[in-house]
Parts: sequence; C-alpha cells; structure tokens
Amino acid sequence: MSAIDQYLDSHATRFEEELCEFLRIPSVSADANHRPDMHRAADWVVDQFRRMGFATDVIATAGHPMVYAESPKVPGAPTALVYGHYDVQPVEPLDKWISPPFEPTRRDGNLYARGATDDKGQLFTHMKGVEAWVTVEGRLPVNLKFLIEGEEEVGSQALEKYLEEHADRLACDCVVISDGGQFAPGMPAINYGLRGISYFELRVTGPDRDLHSGSFGGSVTNPANALCKILTGLMDSQGRVTIPGFYDDVVPLTDRERSEYAALPFDEKEYFEQIGLKQGTGEVGYTALERRWARPTFDINGLWSGYQGDGAKTVLPATAGAKFSFRLVPDQDPAKIYEGLKQKIAELSPPGITTELLEFQGAPGVLVSLDSPYIEAAAKGIQHAFGRRPVFTREGGSIPIVTKFHQCLGAVVLLIGWGQDDDNTHSPNEKFALVDFHRGIKASAKLWEELAKC
Amino acid sequence: MSAIDQYLDSHATRFEEELCEFLRIPSVSADANHRPDMHRAADWVVDQFRRMGFATDVIATAGHPMVYAESPKVPGAPTALVYGHYDVQPVEPLDKWISPPFEPTRRDGNLYARGATDDKGQLFTHMKGVEAWVTVEGRLPVNLKFLIEGEEEVGSQALEKYLEEHADRLACDCVVISDGGQFAPGMPAINYGLRGISYFELRVTGPDRDLHSGSFGGSVTNPANALCKILTGLMDSQGRVTIPGFYDDVVPLTDRERSEYAALPFDEKEYFEQIGLKQGTGEVGYTALERRWARPTFDINGLWSGYQGDGAKTVLPATAGAKFSFRLVPDQDPAKIYEGLKQKIAELSPPGITTELLEFQGAPGVLVSLDSPYIEAAAKGIQHAFGRRPVFTREGGSIPIVTKFHQCLGAVVLLIGWGQDDDNTHSPNEKFALVDFHRGIKASAKLWEELAKC
Repeated sequence: MSAIDQYLDSHATRFEEELCEFLRIPSVSADANHRPDMHRAADWVVDQFRRMGFATDVIATAGHPMVYAESPKVPGAPTALVYGHYDVQPVEPLDKWISPPFEPTRRDGNLYARGATDDKGQLFTHMKGVEAWVTVEGRLPVNLKFLIEGEEEVGSQALEKYLEEHADRLACDCVVISDGGQFAPGMPAINYGLRGISYFELRVTGPDRDLHSGSFGGSVTNPANALCKILTGLMDSQGRVTIPGFYDDVVPLTDRERSEYAALPFDEKEYFEQIGLKQGTGEVGYTALERRWARPTFDINGLWSGYQGDGAKTVLPATAGAKFSFRLVPDQDPAKIYEGLKQKIAELSPPGITTELLEFQGAPGVLVSLDSPYIEAAAKGIQHAFGRRPVFTREGGSIPIVTKFHQCLGAVVLLIGWGQDDDNTHSPNEKFALVDFHRGIKASAKLWEELAKC
Repeated sequence: MSAIDQYLDSHATRFEEELCEFLRIPSVSADANHRPDMHRAADWVVDQFRRMGFATDVIATAGHPMVYAESPKVPGAPTALVYGHYDVQPVEPLDKWISPPFEPTRRDGNLYARGATDDKGQLFTHMKGVEAWVTVEGRLPVNLKFLIEGEEEVGSQALEKYLEEHADRLACDCVVISDGGQFAPGMPAINYGLRGISYFELRVTGPDRDLHSGSFGGSVTNPANALCKILTGLMDSQGRVTIPGFYDDVVPLTDRERSEYAALPFDEKEYFEQIGLKQGTGEVGYTALERRWARPTFDINGLWSGYQGDGAKTVLPATAGAKFSFRLVPDQDPAKIYEGLKQKIAELSPPGITTELLEFQGAPGVLVSLDSPYIEAAAKGIQHAFGRRPVFTREGGSIPIVTKFHQCLGAVVLLIGWGQDDDNTHSPNEKFALVDFHRGIKASAKLWEELAKC
C-alpha cells in the first residue's frame, strides 16, 4: 500500500469532519439572504488551498465570487484544471428533510446534507487528493488549477464570461469535473461525450386572417397542414434527418464503443417501462443507448395553430408555429445545420405560405476519444480506488458549461462523478455515500499520479 | 304581359309599405326583452296568410313560436315547402346606423332596415307571389306549405326537432329557401349544392410525463412528431385524401358544371389577393372554385403540443393533439369516412404512442342534380323576373338547416336568394335593393306556375 493511500486511510475521519464543516455553511446561491454565507463558503475554500501552498484568488463578480487556486509550478508536467462549485440548491420543502439540511448527519453509511454530493462533497475529494500529495510527498506530481464558482445553480453567467476572457490563465491539458454520478452503485463511469443542440422556431403564415374552412377550404394552403408537412419532411422513414449534409460530420460509433455500451447493465424494457412505455422508435440500426448518446435527433418541442379549446371550430387558421430541435453529436456544426435546414424548409414549403425561421441556441457536442491518455489516466485512478475499471458512457443532453470549457480552453474534459442516482440532488435528503467519498479521494490522488505520465 | 305580372306591378308600392310594417316589428330573437315583439311578428305573418285563405298554425316552442301555413289543396299538383324566418339579428352597434334599424328608410333605390334582406324581405317576396295568384286566379297552381321560424339567428333548435317529428305534415316535393344572395348584382344564382363535414380531434400520447429531450431524445417516439406524421399522411402529394375509399362515393363534377363555373365572373387572382395571398394550392386538376364547391378537403383546424411560450424549452412532450376536418361532398358518408380514418390512423401510427380519436360532427353534403325539373322551374321563374338565366353555384360550407330539410323530408332543396353581397346582413345599415324585392316577387309568382308543370 502506498504512503498516499495510508495517509488517506488514517485521516478519513478528519476528512469527513472537514466536509461537515463545509456543508454547514448554507451557501444557497438563489437566495439573496444567503449572500454573506456565499462569502463564508468561498473563504473556507480559499483557506483550504492556502494551507496546501496554493496561490489563491477570490474573483469578484456581479453575483457570487469565484475561487481560483493554482499549485506551485511543476516544470515539464501536464496541467489539469479542476472545476467545481461551492453553491447549493435551495432546501425547500424543508419539512421533507429527515435531518436538517445544514446539519450534516450520518445514517446507514451516508452523509445527509444539502450539497453533500452536489457539489461540495465531490469537489472536496479533489482537494483532499491534493492534500495527501502535498503532505506526504511535499509536492504534486502535476500542475493543478482549481476554478470553483458560486453560481452553478443559478446559471454560471460570471463563469462563462471569465472562461471567454481568461483562457490564458486557465490554460490546461485537461479539465476534471466531478459533479455527476456513477453508472450504478460501485460501477464508476467516465462520461466522455455530450450531445450538442440546434434549437429553432418555425412560423408559417398563410392568409391574412383566419378563414371559414367551408367557404375557403380546399383552395387555400392551410398553414397548419403545411407546417406538419414541413416538419414531417425533416425525417425519413428510417428515422434519419433529411437535411442535406446532416450526417457528413457525424463521428461514427466505433466497434469498441458499441461493445462497451452493449456490456452495460442497461435493460431497454425496464427503461421504457419507467416512462410508461412498452417500446420506442428511433434511427434504424441503433440500440436505445446508442440513439440517446451517440446519434443526432429531431424532436418537436412545441406546436400550435388555430383552435385549441373545447369542441369544434371550423377555422382555416392564418398561422401555425413550432419549436423543434436537433440534438447534435460531434463533429456536427450548428451553423451548417442551420444553413441546411433553411434550404430543406424552402424545398418542403408548398406555395401559398411564407415561413420564418428563428434560431434559438446552437452548441456543438463534445467527445473525448477513448484512446486519449487522459481518459486512460482517469480510468486507472478510478480502478485503483473502486477495484474495477470504469464503464464508458456519454450523456444525451448538453451541459453548457462543459461545452464552454471545451470550446474556450480546447482541453480534454474528464467527467468523473462519484455520486449515485438516488443521492437526491436538488431534492430533500440529499446524501453522499461515505464509501464513495473516500473512494473518490483515493481515485483523485491516483489521478494526479497517472496524469503526470501523460 | 300576364295578369299576374300586371297585378304585381300595380301593387308594388303597397307591397313595400307592407314590408315596412313587417320590418318595424323589432323581432330580435337573441334579446329576451323582445319576446312580445316575436309574438307580434308571428301574428303579423299569420294574419297575412289568413287573408290569402291559408290554414295557419302558430306552433309554440321552448323559445319563439313557429308559423305554419298551408294552401287549400290543389289535387294532382306538386307540393312546395317555403322556409323562412321572421327573427332578425341584434342591431348593435346602434350608432353606426344611418337611419334607425326599425324605421325602414328608402335611400338610393334601397330599403334600409334590420331584416330587410335577412330574411323578412326575401321571405315576403314568396308571400306576395302567393297573393297575386290567389287574387288574380282565385287559387294557386301548386300546393304550398310555409314553415317560418323565429329562431334562425339563435340556432334553430325547435325547428330541427319539429322537422324530425313532423315529416308527414311537411311532406313536399321541393323546399324553397330565399335567405341568401345573387352571385353578383343582377346575376341571380341557384345554389344547388352544399358540402358536408366530418370533424375530429386526435390525441396522441407517448411517455407518461414530459421528458428531457437530451436524455431521452432519439430513443422515445415523440408524440408531436408522430402527430405531424399522421396528419401529413392523410393527404398525398396530389392534394388527395389517403383514407381508403374516401373518393368512392364522390359525385364527380359534370362537364356542364365545369363549364358553368368557368363562365362565372370569378377572378382567382383577385380572390387570393382579397385574403392576402398570391396563390393557393389544392387537389391537382381542379380550379379554385371547383375545389371550394365540389371537392372534399382535409384541413387542420387546431394543433397543440409541448411548449408554446417565449424562447426555448428542451422538452420531449408527453402528448400532442389536433382538431381537423374533412369537407365532404355528395355522396360521401360521414360514418364511412370515420371508419376509414380510424384504419388509416392505425396504419400511420409509429410504435411507442397511443392515439385517441374523437368524432365531433358529421353531416353529409347536399346536391341537387342540375337536370332536376325543379331546378329548371326555378331557373325559368328567375329568368322571367331578372331577364337572364341564373348561374348555378354551390357553397363550400354546410348550412345545417338545409341538410336537415334534405335529410328529414327527402326533398329537393332550391336555394334561390335575391340579396347582394353588400346588403350588410348581421351588420349596421342592412338593406335590400327595391329592384331585387320586386324581381323576387315576380320570380316567386312565376316559380309557382313552373313548379305546377313538374
């Protein structure tokens, strides 16, 4: 057993006590009454880093302060940036908590408190991984930067701006984020991909007023019929989007990825049952997991036209509209999708209507190659602590801040979470399994060692 | 010149005075304050018929009374039923009237008053046509029945029930209705067809709650996508409805009808411009008039799903819905359409959703053959009075009470109106051109003669 691991084991109880101290600070970012607590929490974090010899900086923002901390330079070694947040969700409804949210309580091997897993507990694992190195070895094997914000639960506005303006200061080889979960209890995961998104609104206009569907019907292009036709025309019978060039830049699933997914304990039947369904549909030739994680989509998010009330109204509506979005996968480019979509809508539009297309959001997907040495370093750190290799997963949604890190810093993002699905993040009785807390610290300490070899 | 026409000419002024008397009764059916006026108007009509030797009956209803009048029996002659209504629309906004609505006023060859054309003035033309025969010849050449209601402007509920329950009493060869207009001033029309309707609501249900379109999108059938696909699948690229058997019972346009329509002063460009359009679309192979009058349609009347507010919401909606209708033409049967639609929706539905179809209204279309002797009788009556043959038109909408007459009595319905498009029915300054009033009387008197030959 290494000296680092021995240190971690012998100080485990103190680590828990320190985390409890951190959790007692009610740093609810959404509530203006907690503004002083936000500063206390930031100061508490700064104090931890100072004691470990980091250079620290409290960055004032229009909202709550960010903490920046940088380890002493290790020449020739890679640089990792750890991102986390010290703010927490509101605690309401308070009467649903078994123990008070800001009085951390141990029950059944878990530590209950608001922020236990999201994200104070997980962030703290990386701070303790640093402490072990600094105390035992006198120095870290890699260069580390920590960027810890206080506004994750309210939109990360200051952080996004800071990333755009201070890419030089934050320059790194990889970004480490532990703000999520394992695939299943004791089955840690590395999330190596996120989907992006292109979101639109389409407005279709026909006659200059609502018409009587008897007097005019049959001769006038119905904007609602036209809208349905256009939207339907965006996907073919194989569940593939018909926009020209849509799949040109899609990074195909590798054989390794497909077998990694197939080996996961994921039961399609159970998945559908949990949302009240017997079955799904999707792009032909892919499993449900592949469709969710690694293939682009077309989903209508909203539809409206004409009469939506009770009974019947014989109206030929003047307008119709829809909101719809494409989940994108690497390397699809939202700007190219937009251009192709405009062209396709023009092709699909019948005479007698005009269309207006509004673009709401565009964000590309994120994908780290499974062959990346940083991925392997993280896998080794996790294997060391959890006693098994992590599984490799992706996420179907986008995490805007992850995309932002990826875009601004051009670095590999390692999403390695220690949480579990039943941790009650954002709900009453949030918890963090103590075994995961300690495994997380051990994985983190090992990660610094492995990253040094990259 | 016939004795009948001479009589009509020499009593023209008195006819106008009598009509003014009728118009002075403010028989607004919608306003409970006018209940005594409704009875006065009914009594006034009854008195007219009594003086012409008709058997009369004031039929009490839950609302306003109906008047029934029947001529002395003419053995061996056909029977016509004249339908009209003595009630009028409310007059608001009163300050927009140039002369008070219940003080009939002559201006520029028109008679201004509420009810002048809708329907007291037009109904009265048929009463005066009778008077000429009774006075000049001592008897009518045909059997006539008049059914005059006081609730046309508020839904005709009592009339519908009466038609269902007293088909024997009302038995006739044709129904004459003058409650509409000419095609253009001085260009009288016989409307010989109405479209019917089948109206539905389709509800599509997918997962048991709204889902995150990122986490689930691609694997779950989106109810809004499915709805658009189903609706779009109900019409092919030629503008034809795809429901099995949909066109089986459609009475095709005859060559005569197509040339009658083509000869009408109807400018497609102008038609579209009036509703803010440059062009329309519709079933391939038909003109705009043919599409509106004689071909069935599929129009979406309402659409809804997911998020309809500002901005973007990345939701995969749990449900989606639409209201839509088919305008039917003779001899399409709403019950068969409903069955075919259910089958087609089942075919078009992707896996992973359930559908619920609600049927709201079903009414068949009405069509009188242009070869009918009753049509020719009406055409001759009109030609005699207006100095030209009528044009033959249809109406794209349905007129429920006309369908009801057609269904309950199995008789040919003759829709022959003397009004003009600018008569301001239902608006301030309603009018009836005096020339049309007198031409209407003359056409009516001639109609009785022509009908006798059928």
